[in-house]
Amino acid sequence: MRERSIRIGLIGFGTIGTGVIKLLQRQRQAIRDRIGVGLELVRVADIDTRRDRGVKLARGVLVNDARKILDDPSVDVVIELMGGTGIARRFVLEAIAAGKDVVTANKALLAHHGDEIFRAVERGGTGIGFEASVGGGIPIIRALKESLGGDRNQAVYGIVNGTSNYILSRMSDEGGEFGDVLKAAQAGGLAEADPSFDVDGIDAAHKLTLLIQLAFGARVPVAAANVEGIRHVSQADIAFAREFGYAIKSLAVAKRAGERIEASVRPTMVPVRHPLASVNGALNAIVVQGEALGPSMYTGAGAGMMPTATAVVADLMDVTRNRVHGCRGRVAPLGYPVRHQVRARPVAPDELHGEFYLRFMLVDRPGGLGRIAGVLGQHDVSIAAVIQREREHGRVVPVVIRTHDAREQALRRAVRAIDRLAVVRGRSTVIRIEESLG
Amino acid sequence: MRERSIRIGLIGFGTIGTGVIKLLQRQRQAIRDRIGVGLELVRVADIDTRRDRGVKLARGVLVNDARKILDDPSVDVVIELMGGTGIARRFVLEAIAAGKDVVTANKALLAHHGDEIFRAVERGGTGIGFEASVGGGIPIIRALKESLGGDRNQAVYGIVNGTSNYILSRMSDEGGEFGDVLKAAQAGGLAEADPSFDVDGIDAAHKLTLLIQLAFGARVPVAAANVEGIRHVSQADIAFAREFGYAIKSLAVAKRAGERIEASVRPTMVPVRHPLASVNGALNAIVVQGEALGPSMYTGAGAGMMPTATAVVADLMDVTRNRVHGCRGRVAPLGYPVRHQVRARPVAPDELHGEFYLRFMLVDRPGGLGRIAGVLGQHDVSIAAVIQREREHGRVVPVVIRTHDAREQALRRAVRAIDRLAVVRGRSTVIRIEESLG
Repeated sequence: MRERSIRIGLIGFGTIGTGVIKLLQRQRQAIRDRIGVGLELVRVADIDTRRDRGVKLARGVLVNDARKILDDPSVDVVIELMGGTGIARRFVLEAIAAGKDVVTANKALLAHHGDEIFRAVERGGTGIGFEASVGGGIPIIRALKESLGGDRNQAVYGIVNGTSNYILSRMSDEGGEFGDVLKAAQAGGLAEADPSFDVDGIDAAHKLTLLIQLAFGARVPVAAANVEGIRHVSQADIAFAREFGYAIKSLAVAKRAGERIEASVRPTMVPVRHPLASVNGALNAIVVQGEALGPSMYTGAGAGMMPTATAVVADLMDVTRNRVHGCRGRVAPLGYPVRHQVRARPVAPDELHGEFYLRFMLVDRPGGLGRIAGVLGQHDVSIAAVIQREREHGRVVPVVIRTHDAREQALRRAVRAIDRLAVVRGRSTVIRIEESLG
Repeated sequence: MRERSIRIGLIGFGTIGTGVIKLLQRQRQAIRDRIGVGLELVRVADIDTRRDRGVKLARGVLVNDARKILDDPSVDVVIELMGGTGIARRFVLEAIAAGKDVVTANKALLAHHGDEIFRAVERGGTGIGFEASVGGGIPIIRALKESLGGDRNQAVYGIVNGTSNYILSRMSDEGGEFGDVLKAAQAGGLAEADPSFDVDGIDAAHKLTLLIQLAFGARVPVAAANVEGIRHVSQADIAFAREFGYAIKSLAVAKRAGERIEASVRPTMVPVRHPLASVNGALNAIVVQGEALGPSMYTGAGAGMMPTATAVVADLMDVTRNRVHGCRGRVAPLGYPVRHQVRARPVAPDELHGEFYLRFMLVDRPGGLGRIAGVLGQHDVSIAAVIQREREHGRVVPVVIRTHDAREQALRRAVRAIDRLAVVRGRSTVIRIEESLG
């Protein structure tokens, strides 16, 4: 075992970067005891070298040019925390080509350019860690890569976007409609000024792409997932869901269906007794359903400075151990070589089916509900339950329907037809019900 | 990378052993794709070579003598699934001395002789895996060894005995007293003929010893934990707990208290909204409370043939990867070298404190409750709530008390004094309330 320390360069001195530095400083000796060598942060690059982040760096460590890290042959490991898929991709590939190990939290980068990056790592025999890219501090990546590697997984699903979960939890606990709760979350630093990545399901879709690769040994293009945000979920839907015994969660779901994979990110009704229903606030939780293991669930802080920093530091320790012991190719980036990856076909739209919650805004007139039921029947969508609480002739009132298992394509066609009826106002709401999660 | 396969010998062809063989056969090609070499089960040793376990072994694989594995220099890895702390210890140490890697599910062995075994592994530069020893198929060992290794943990606690949890869950869901539910569990194969290890907390204490070593880098002798089984939990306690907003779980808990560690296994009241409260049946769940990460929770099948087999096979893949890549000392057995382990002092009995639930069987007479309250007051135990529902002069009725934070030693003294009062019948029940779990 070499006695020198491992030299680390960090690109992107934002929130997570600050947490990583704090944790490395705080746990310096404990980490050295565990892995046998010290981790030395030799350079931190960020365009903003002025702002006080509340951590002390030795003179000369903070630079405004990432080249001082990438071009320095003495840097062993590059931590990429700048985000984005353009320059970050180039920097990561450069670092790999230079024989450096890479640790990144960049799910967008890996969802779009993962295979290119993973292949480069395998070719170069270097290491890459991306535990922080899904589930913040929850060690789900290593679990899928190694611990669950002897099983065949049938499904992976969960709550992987903290902002969406925070908003839905707060709407459920304290009331308020999406727009107001979003504003409060933004004021509290729990949502970005531009929240689209989070509340429109894009971030979750990136994470799901990675989870599918890790869990199934298969790749489904990001674009193939059925992605739907939470903007249209209303207080009324949350209340009706509760009445039916469900909580509404933004769920990322991937299931094997024969040789195909069904992938979606969308608001989903989960039975209140299912453990995911009580994962609230900024928590994340991921369930892996294995053929031999059955369901196992991983819950914890899905974001935040210090939680995410623990994942980055764990990856640093991992690539360092491999480097020190001379076995950097020990585990392939995905847990299996990219060449064994299957390019899975997504389930065809006309094969999708499930139970659904529908909410229509109906002008209360005799026969109105009958019209809706009629259109659903024409499309082979059968009704399990109906709630029409308010009754006031001529007024617009909500009608809520819970369907039996139905073909999704037919159901969407039925809803479009219903939305064109004269007695129905506005666009109706369709929310998937997941009754039989493991 | 060598192209030969890794040769495995399995000692103990019971339920888990059968599961391991099934999984290795079923996942043969997928495992080879992941780790680059094949896993070949060359020998299985058991004293019973006749019984049909429903798996096919090639001629000559099944033997009745473990020496055919231990003395065979071509065997790379020994899986020890025989249990016990006598012969198993000798076999494991012999295998290590012969340069073989070891995979074991034997928590009793590791709780009592772990340091001796881990030191031998470190000295010999071999590998050992024991993921199956805690939490069945839940990958908590690797999480603590590697993924959470950059953080400082403050507490680790959870439900780690499936049999106890099954019995308490069933008492809670369907009624019935301990003795009857135990009998039903035994009839259904969910409890052993001699259930003492499980229902008296011994198995959980073994697991807690390991969790403490992994989470805190410290060793607390098995005997130092405060261990209490579930035999005295009654239907009445479960009902009163529910009224107060708690579920009763057999919880293994370890917390840092300054330089000391508080460790206990006992029936515990957990707020119904805490995620542990809804971990039911044979499920296990472990929470790790980290300084940086906060709480993270790991839930899944804590026992059973196939779930536990996934942990054994994951360990096989891990030691194989290290062997193939020539880095068997990559991670120390505990995640840190045994020489860095602290011998932690348990918290002194007179420093223990917490909130408690007390149930007394009182002869209903004027002043009876006052007597109990008086004794508690003399011992500085202050009362938060009292329930005395039934009233019938001269009859024995339950009185239930929820205390404020109290010194446990004083509380136990008070209860002993109360049990000696003429108006109190039988032995009273004391159950810890954990209000502020992370």
